[in-house]
Amino acid sequence: MSARDREGSPQPKVPGDVRELGEFGLISRLTAGRSWPQSTLLGPGDDAAVVAAPDGRVVACVDILVEGVHFRLDWSNPHQVGRKAVAANLADVAAMGAVCTALVVGLGSPPDTPISTVDGLAAGMWEEAGRVGAGIVGGDVVSAERLLVSVTALGDLQGREPVTRAGAQPGDVLALRGRIGWSAAGMAVLGRGFRSPVAVVGAHRVPEPPYDGGPQAAVAGATSMIDTSDGLLADTGHIAAASKVGIDIRSAALAVPQRLVEVASALGADPRHWLLTGGEDHALIATFPADVALPDGWTAIGEVRQGSGVVVDGRPYDGPAGWAHFS
Amino acid sequence: MSARDREGSPQPKVPGDVRELGEFGLISRLTAGRSWPQSTLLGPGDDAAVVAAPDGRVVACVDILVEGVHFRLDWSNPHQVGRKAVAANLADVAAMGAVCTALVVGLGSPPDTPISTVDGLAAGMWEEAGRVGAGIVGGDVVSAERLLVSVTALGDLQGREPVTRAGAQPGDVLALRGRIGWSAAGMAVLGRGFRSPVAVVGAHRVPEPPYDGGPQAAVAGATSMIDTSDGLLADTGHIAAASKVGIDIRSAALAVPQRLVEVASALGADPRHWLLTGGEDHALIATFPADVALPDGWTAIGEVRQGSGVVVDGRPYDGPAGWAHFS
Repeated sequence: MSARDREGSPQPKVPGDVRELGEFGLISRLTAGRSWPQSTLLGPGDDAAVVAAPDGRVVACVDILVEGVHFRLDWSNPHQVGRKAVAANLADVAAMGAVCTALVVGLGSPPDTPISTVDGLAAGMWEEAGRVGAGIVGGDVVSAERLLVSVTALGDLQGREPVTRAGAQPGDVLALRGRIGWSAAGMAVLGRGFRSPVAVVGAHRVPEPPYDGGPQAAVAGATSMIDTSDGLLADTGHIAAASKVGIDIRSAALAVPQRLVEVASALGADPRHWLLTGGEDHALIATFPADVALPDGWTAIGEVRQGSGVVVDGRPYDGPAGWAHFS
Repeated sequence: MSARDREGSPQPKVPGDVRELGEFGLISRLTAGRSWPQSTLLGPGDDAAVVAAPDGRVVACVDILVEGVHFRLDWSNPHQVGRKAVAANLADVAAMGAVCTALVVGLGSPPDTPISTVDGLAAGMWEEAGRVGAGIVGGDVVSAERLLVSVTALGDLQGREPVTRAGAQPGDVLALRGRIGWSAAGMAVLGRGFRSPVAVVGAHRVPEPPYDGGPQAAVAGATSMIDTSDGLLADTGHIAAASKVGIDIRSAALAVPQRLVEVASALGADPRHWLLTGGEDHALIATFPADVALPDGWTAIGEVRQGSGVVVDGRPYDGPAGWAHFS
């Protein structure tokens, strides 16, 4: 992400709106001039795409982002929204220990959506997909009352078994790769009407998941893995529930970045709360057998125990929980 | 589809709405008690699903349906909407000559959506997926202003080459399998405020694509294929454009079903116009070399020529075109 992106600079203005282009014009515009990776055997333009699945199994997941619910165009520009929509899915694929090969994208937009908005969304999606060498191989464009993006990611396991949430064993080490709490800090800043510091606001606009950490952990022997969509506590809780174990997070292992300390101080907030409950950073959490040397970039942050639930330093955390839909 | 479905009987009432259930409660409800086919190696509940891709390639496509744009809950019940959303995707997979293995579904709903609506949608999706032996392996549920469904279908080519839109050759025979014009007739009936005849209204609510016709045509040597999403003329036009050929449809080969004659007569409409331009029936159109015996269920309806565009009996058709978004 360039500094320019982080400042929320608008996309170049293009005259006209989506209605003017029409469905097929819009599809042409979104696919023109792109190039696809070798794994894209048949790209957009037919009834369906064809993607290589060399492993003989395919990993698949979907996320929908709706304007006003998951993003605000006064907080993020379309390019950033596109990157974030793709990043959430790439992180899910990584959390299985897989490598993303392709994306199919559904786009809903009001007819008066500026073409520049759709251009920005598409450019952001392609940029993020390019970080893992994946192509956007197909999609659907429809009219809708609110801008919305539905991203489906496909991934390849490269011959490894998928790393689920269900394999953690008592005695395993809980480990983290990637930053947490930054997106929550950025959202807190934006929520107060500020646009800086750019570092935390940018982290909310576009997460930076450690995509290669997924296959890396799988190779190293991770017994379970998840990405932090809902927050460290909530997502560790998903591992605990699926694995039927208890997990104890050591708070001393969670270094609070100086930048978050400063921002929290300015806002009168608790930065540790952001680290424990802030979602949307899409860091990776995994468990490893105690005798495994953690791979580069991973930090031990807790232990798996017999029992159930997640505690911090042996005690339940009594702050508010992660983000929940419909509540 | 049972007659009861076709009559638009409401789903059984369940107290409560989506907000009450919450995101995870809703996901639990939508997945509880389901069983998945063998090709589902890992179903819902993890960061991503894992699906068998025995061919080593995977076919993928997506469709979004938005309430008020693609369906109306005063015209169709949620079960019918669910079936139709899945059917459109299964037909796309079939039109590549592939067999659908799995679906991932994104669901957006206002917080006050009755649980019975979501139950009905899910039941309809599962029923339609079951017609081809596919499972719903994962998804996302979000809040949205309008009910919307995003369906991504994955398919397996079973060792065959995909049948694209681009392979039609001058001299090929244009052939059709499945019914056309029925959905348009049903929409015309509903648009006038009627609910019968049930046969045409039901065809608009839930299409009946000939899913097995896709692999069947591929095995028989089809040179190109598409499903009728936008209407016979428009979709044949997509083949003509992609294959850089002209196509001449013989109107005499398009038998107008007696039921459509009657409905058109009652409404003062032209039933041939429905056959030529009505979308959403998801019949299959394919081209075959002239020396190929058409497989069972396929009817020759025209010829591929050198040139470009689609004509009917040698002349441009001057009725209005198929459905276009944003117009």
